[in-house]
Amino acid sequence: MIDRKVAQALDARDPLGAFRDRFDLPDGIIYLDGNSLGAMPKSVPARMKHAVEQEWARGLIRSWNDADWYPAPQRVGARIARLIGASADEVVVADSTSVNLFKVLTAALALRAKRRKIVTLRDDFPTDLYVAEGIGERADVIIAAVEPDALLDAIDGETAAVSLTQVNFRTGRRYDMGKITRRAHEAGALIVWDLCHTAGAMPCDLNGAGADFAVGCGYKYLNGGPGAPAFVFAAKRHHATMRPALRGWHGHARPFDFSAEYQPAPGMARFLVGTAPQLSLIALEAALDAFDGVDLAALRDKSVALTELFIRLVDQHVPGFGLASPRDPEQRGSQVSLAHSEGYAIMQALIAQGVIGDFRAPDILRFGFAPLYTRYVDVWDAVMILGDVMAKRPWRGAGSPARKAVT
Amino acid sequence: MIDRKVAQALDARDPLGAFRDRFDLPDGIIYLDGNSLGAMPKSVPARMKHAVEQEWARGLIRSWNDADWYPAPQRVGARIARLIGASADEVVVADSTSVNLFKVLTAALALRAKRRKIVTLRDDFPTDLYVAEGIGERADVIIAAVEPDALLDAIDGETAAVSLTQVNFRTGRRYDMGKITRRAHEAGALIVWDLCHTAGAMPCDLNGAGADFAVGCGYKYLNGGPGAPAFVFAAKRHHATMRPALRGWHGHARPFDFSAEYQPAPGMARFLVGTAPQLSLIALEAALDAFDGVDLAALRDKSVALTELFIRLVDQHVPGFGLASPRDPEQRGSQVSLAHSEGYAIMQALIAQGVIGDFRAPDILRFGFAPLYTRYVDVWDAVMILGDVMAKRPWRGAGSPARKAVT
Repeated sequence: MIDRKVAQALDARDPLGAFRDRFDLPDGIIYLDGNSLGAMPKSVPARMKHAVEQEWARGLIRSWNDADWYPAPQRVGARIARLIGASADEVVVADSTSVNLFKVLTAALALRAKRRKIVTLRDDFPTDLYVAEGIGERADVIIAAVEPDALLDAIDGETAAVSLTQVNFRTGRRYDMGKITRRAHEAGALIVWDLCHTAGAMPCDLNGAGADFAVGCGYKYLNGGPGAPAFVFAAKRHHATMRPALRGWHGHARPFDFSAEYQPAPGMARFLVGTAPQLSLIALEAALDAFDGVDLAALRDKSVALTELFIRLVDQHVPGFGLASPRDPEQRGSQVSLAHSEGYAIMQALIAQGVIGDFRAPDILRFGFAPLYTRYVDVWDAVMILGDVMAKRPWRGAGSPARKAVT
Repeated sequence: MIDRKVAQALDARDPLGAFRDRFDLPDGIIYLDGNSLGAMPKSVPARMKHAVEQEWARGLIRSWNDADWYPAPQRVGARIARLIGASADEVVVADSTSVNLFKVLTAALALRAKRRKIVTLRDDFPTDLYVAEGIGERADVIIAAVEPDALLDAIDGETAAVSLTQVNFRTGRRYDMGKITRRAHEAGALIVWDLCHTAGAMPCDLNGAGADFAVGCGYKYLNGGPGAPAFVFAAKRHHATMRPALRGWHGHARPFDFSAEYQPAPGMARFLVGTAPQLSLIALEAALDAFDGVDLAALRDKSVALTELFIRLVDQHVPGFGLASPRDPEQRGSQVSLAHSEGYAIMQALIAQGVIGDFRAPDILRFGFAPLYTRYVDVWDAVMILGDVMAKRPWRGAGSPARKAVT
C-alpha cells in the first residue's frame, strides 16, 4: 500500500529530483498543467531584464549583431534539436505551431505535387485540422480526418502527407512514431509530426524514425513562457527542395541585400518569415537552461512513474472517474485524462484547493506531469485533494460555475 | 542662418518636447534608427518584470484569464487603432507583418475570386513581394510589380488587390493613401496598405481613405521592442465575409470548444491563428503608453520639421550626398535617405561617433526621425558629426569595413 511516506521516499531517490530547484514555483500550489503552460525556470527573469534594459534600451538596433539577436532562431532551434532527435541544423524557432504547420504542410504538398490528400485524425488538436482544411480549400487538397483505428489504412497512394500529433491533447494517447512513419513512407507519403506534447516531456527520435517534418510549441514542457515561439524541423534530405508557401525576408538567402527576387536561404532558414519576437524568443532560450544535463531516458522513466502512480492512486482512492488515457504507459504521454460528467465543476473546485489541472470539453479533466519539476508527493497530495473534493462536492447547490477561457 | 542655439530654441518650444522623457535613451548616442527599432519606453521594464515574475511564475495558466492575456490581441489592437484611423474593433495584434500580409492578401483574393492579379511596386519592401509571389505561385495569381510612376495605370479590371507600403523603406517616399485607394476601388480592386513606416510616425486615416486591409509592425515607430508582434486591420464591411487562408484555433468562434469543425470568429479575431507571444505582446502594450495624449497632427508637424531641418543642414554643411528622399515633405515619411557610393563606410564611421542610422544596399544611408523622442538639437549634432566624418574619412586606407546584418 502506498502512502505519503512512500511518495516522499520516491522523491528522495529521484535522479531528477534536484532539477525542480531550477523552477520558480508558487507556494501552496500543485501544478499539473505544465502541458498547457510550463512553469517558469529561474533562469528567465535576469535574462529578460538584461534583454530589455541593456540589449534593447542601451544597444538599440546594434543588438541585432552585438547581442546575437539575428541568429537566435537557429541557435535556440539547435538547443531544441537535442530534445527531439534532430541535428542542430534541422530545427529553427519561428512563429507559432499553427503557422509552422502551414509551412511544412505546404512544403510537403509541393514535394508530392501529384498527390492531393492529407491524412490526419479527426480528434487531433483542432488547430491542426483547421490549418490543413485552410490549405485544402484553396489548393484542391482533400483532408481525410479519420478515427485513430483507421489511420494506417487511410494512408494510400494518393496521400501526400500524414499530419499527426504524437501525443493527443485530450487523451494523452501516444502514437508510435516509427511505425506510422514507416507506413507513410511505404505509401510514398511524407509525415509531419506535431510534437507539442512530446518535446521536453520524453525523448523523441525524429531522425531515428526517419520523420520528414515536425513542429511543436515552446510553452508547454519546454517552459518558454506564454505563447513562446514554436519550432519547426525538416529532415536534411528535404533542405534543398522544400518550398513552403509562406515566405518572407528572413527566409531569403541574403535578406540584407533587399533584393526584389526571392531566393530561399539554404537549409532551415527558409522557414523563417518575418522578424522573430525576440523578447519571447529570449525567454524561451533562457528557459531551455532547465534542460542542461537532463538525461532524456530518465525524464521518460519519471514521467511514466508519475502517471502510473497517479492512475493507481485514483483507482484506489477516488472511484467514479473513467480513465480517458491509455492504461498502457507505452501508449501514453506525460498526462493523464480522467472523464467525469461534472468535470468542469470538479476542476474548478480542485483549482480552488490549489491543484491546477485543466478541463477539456465535454468531460475531460487533464493532469499533466512535467517530470522536471513534479514530485511524487505532488501526485499523492493531488489525489488526496481530489478525493476530498469529491467527498464534499462544493459546487452542488451553488449552480454550475461559469466557464472561462483557459488554454 | 541656423546654428545650434536655434535648434535648442526649437526644442524649447516643441509641444512634444516633454515626451522624450517617456523613453530610456542611452547617453552619448543620437538615435536616428527608430524606423528600424524604436527606443525603449520607460513603461516597459516594470511591466515586463511583473509579467514574468508574477503573471507567469505565480499565476501560471490562470493568467490567461486573471491577467487578461487572452484578450490582449484585441486590447492592444484597439490602442493601435487610434493611431491609424481605424475603429477599435477593426485591428488585432498577431504574428509578424509578413504573416499578416499573407492573411489579408489571401482574404482579398477570396473576396475578388474572379480576378487573378495583385498589383504592387517593384521597390516595395522585399518581404511584401515575397509574400505575394509565394501566394501567386500556388494560386495561379499574377504579381504585377511595377515602377512607382506606373502604379495607377497598372490597376485594372483584372486586379484583385493592390498591395503597397505607404512609406517606402528605402527612400522614405510617402504615397497618397486617399488617391491610390480611390483608384483601386474605381477598378473594382481591394487595397492593402503596409503601414510599417507610418504607424506611430504620423496620422493615418484608414477609414477616411476607405482602405480595405492594412498591416504594420510593432517595433518601429510604435516602439514595441525587437520583433514585436504586428497588427492587422480590416474594414468592418469585410468582417462577415473575409476568409484568410491561414487559420488556427485562436481564430475560431469558440476556441475552447475544441471542435473539429472550423467556424471563423466574428470580426477581426479570425485573423488570429496560434497563441500570441504574450511577453512580446505585453512589451508592445506597455510601450504604447508613450502615445497617451499625443496629438497626431503635432507628431506629423514635428516629423516634417525634423526632416526639413536635416535636409537643409546637409545641403548647407555636408555637400556630396544625393537626396534619395523626396524634397517635398508632403511626399516624404519620417525618414531622410542620402545616397553616397561610400555609404556603408560612412554609416559605420557615424555609428562609431554615436550617430546611429542604418545602411541599405547599394548606397543609401537612412536617417529616421521618431518625433516622440528626437530633438532638433539631435539633428544639428548629427549633421555636424556627419560633416566631421566626411572631412576625416576614417575608413580610407583601412580597407572596406565588413558588412554586418542589421535589420
